Amino acid sequence: MGKKIKIFDLTLRDGSHAKSHQYTPEQMATLAGQIDKIGVEAIEFGHGNGLGGSSLQYGFAAASDRDYIEAVSPVIKNSNMSIIILPGVGTRHELNLAKEFGAKYARICTQISEVDIGEQHIKMAKKLGLIPISVLPCASVIPVEETVRYAQMAESYGAEVVYLLDGGGYQLPEQTFERISAMKKAIDVPVGFHGHNNLQLAVANSKAAVEAGAEYIDCCLKGFGAGAGNCPTEIFVAVLGRMGIESGVNLYQTMDIGDQYLRPLMPRAMEIDSDRIMLGYAGCYSSFLLFAQRAGEKYQVDPRDIIKEIGKRECTEGQENICIEVAYDLAKEKLAKQTSI
Amino acid sequence: MGKKIKIFDLTLRDGSHAKSHQYTPEQMATLAGQIDKIGVEAIEFGHGNGLGGSSLQYGFAAASDRDYIEAVSPVIKNSNMSIIILPGVGTRHELNLAKEFGAKYARICTQISEVDIGEQHIKMAKKLGLIPISVLPCASVIPVEETVRYAQMAESYGAEVVYLLDGGGYQLPEQTFERISAMKKAIDVPVGFHGHNNLQLAVANSKAAVEAGAEYIDCCLKGFGAGAGNCPTEIFVAVLGRMGIESGVNLYQTMDIGDQYLRPLMPRAMEIDSDRIMLGYAGCYSSFLLFAQRAGEKYQVDPRDIIKEIGKRECTEGQENICIEVAYDLAKEKLAKQTSI
Repeated sequence: MGKKIKIFDLTLRDGSHAKSHQYTPEQMATLAGQIDKIGVEAIEFGHGNGLGGSSLQYGFAAASDRDYIEAVSPVIKNSNMSIIILPGVGTRHELNLAKEFGAKYARICTQISEVDIGEQHIKMAKKLGLIPISVLPCASVIPVEETVRYAQMAESYGAEVVYLLDGGGYQLPEQTFERISAMKKAIDVPVGFHGHNNLQLAVANSKAAVEAGAEYIDCCLKGFGAGAGNCPTEIFVAVLGRMGIESGVNLYQTMDIGDQYLRPLMPRAMEIDSDRIMLGYAGCYSSFLLFAQRAGEKYQVDPRDIIKEIGKRECTEGQENICIEVAYDLAKEKLAKQTSI
Repeated sequence: MGKKIKIFDLTLRDGSHAKSHQYTPEQMATLAGQIDKIGVEAIEFGHGNGLGGSSLQYGFAAASDRDYIEAVSPVIKNSNMSIIILPGVGTRHELNLAKEFGAKYARICTQISEVDIGEQHIKMAKKLGLIPISVLPCASVIPVEETVRYAQMAESYGAEVVYLLDGGGYQLPEQTFERISAMKKAIDVPVGFHGHNNLQLAVANSKAAVEAGAEYIDCCLKGFGAGAGNCPTEIFVAVLGRMGIESGVNLYQTMDIGDQYLRPLMPRAMEIDSDRIMLGYAGCYSSFLLFAQRAGEKYQVDPRDIIKEIGKRECTEGQENICIEVAYDLAKEKLAKQTSI
């Protein structure tokens, strides 16, 4: 067996999105206690948008951050505890909470081009004795050199691992390979990858990331995560096994725990619906979806054309005004065409 | 846009497996009429095991081959009609039936190491004026040179396209690339690929096949097919679009037809369960699954260990006696270990 890959299991954090953040603390504790047996490096849990995420804007969770962390922290014995925060949503208050309950990893997630927003949080996490990890979405809309530059900034703030996050499931494996390879050459800390499944390429992208030198991979049991879902833990462990790469994760146990403990809690099997395929195809962040559908209805244009155009414009956040602007432009074009006929 | 890829849509044939062959002729005709609009090269339909498959052994279909073909053939206007037969299950009778109703392609499927069993069927299809295509499963258990040799044999019989079929979803993309590349160098007729999704790599494998020179790819709307399912038509069309490769298939229509016409007929979303992952991991043909489970129960060994061992022994058909033999060996080993302690 070759090098060791560290798997972060996010069934209880990214999977919270797929349950509208309604895991009860008891369900989380039971599942965490099981996942703790399989051999993953870390278990991340809590609101889908991270600590501090429970709100009117992101959706209220079934319990508070403190309730979840009180329930889950005692059962994590073999793995390590990971939390994630979006700066501004999560603050020093949440980092203190994580520290209080013995978290090992604090992951700080910012749009890649806004990595500087995370500087204070990375530094504070480090000061608290947490291992800060920088998680950077939306690298696919910027050139490789810029990706590298932002990764270097994250490293300079003290991030001890730098992740790329393909939140829209947009990347093709060769793009993942190219970006991770470039990062590996430019920074000294390990590199990680977090893939989504919009084009059913999360496994292939995670595999490409490992081939390019990534050492940290995010997975969820049965792919249970936001939108089109994530790289499934059991499948990725099987694929690593086939590649002769050690993950330290027990395949049979992972499958059994997924079947016995997670599946009954899943509202349905993960399904990549047409909206998700469209977002992945266009490279459009999922937070645009609802706005695109609304604007499409108002201006009588296909929301998919709006999503495609937003992908082309390389926007990285779900601003409603952009959707309206694009819909208006497309409606004008349509009208011009009709008039000219 | 670069080269043109021809997509065969098998929603109505491989998807029959996922409906226990219970599509009604009316449902098939409605769906075929819709799929006919999207721009695929061919539509394959009928019993999951091909013409002649409706039987006690393979499961009875809701209707006869003649009923299906009478219902479906009139609605295929833009695409072409494809049928598939397993020699012995399908005979000259079925090839005549296909000819009578205007099929263009007759696909002859044999285990790759038994390609010679298909010689007569390929020749007869050609004589009837059908385009014979050789479809060869289980290439992954034999060396690349043998794969090439069997492909050459298929070509020598008159096959006008030679497909590799990764029925267990076992292949990694680099293995697909290597095999298809080697075939491309060795034969003059075009090459095709048919992937299953056990390791969620059907899209990545189909992409690798195209990169290696394959020109024919099998897909199903929403991946609706046997076992872990197939390469999803809409996702693969999106990925080809991203690669700048022309498929002639309309993405929006494909998604709409899948949502409106197929999804309501699906018993559930395609889900890759643990059994399927295990088969893909081990490289074990799915027809072994039931026998492995039975033998595991009888000899008190984990059926997954039986499946793993069968993969190692590179068996290509679902013989019950092999499962019993393996289970017996494993039980003996287990006992020996216990006794020695």
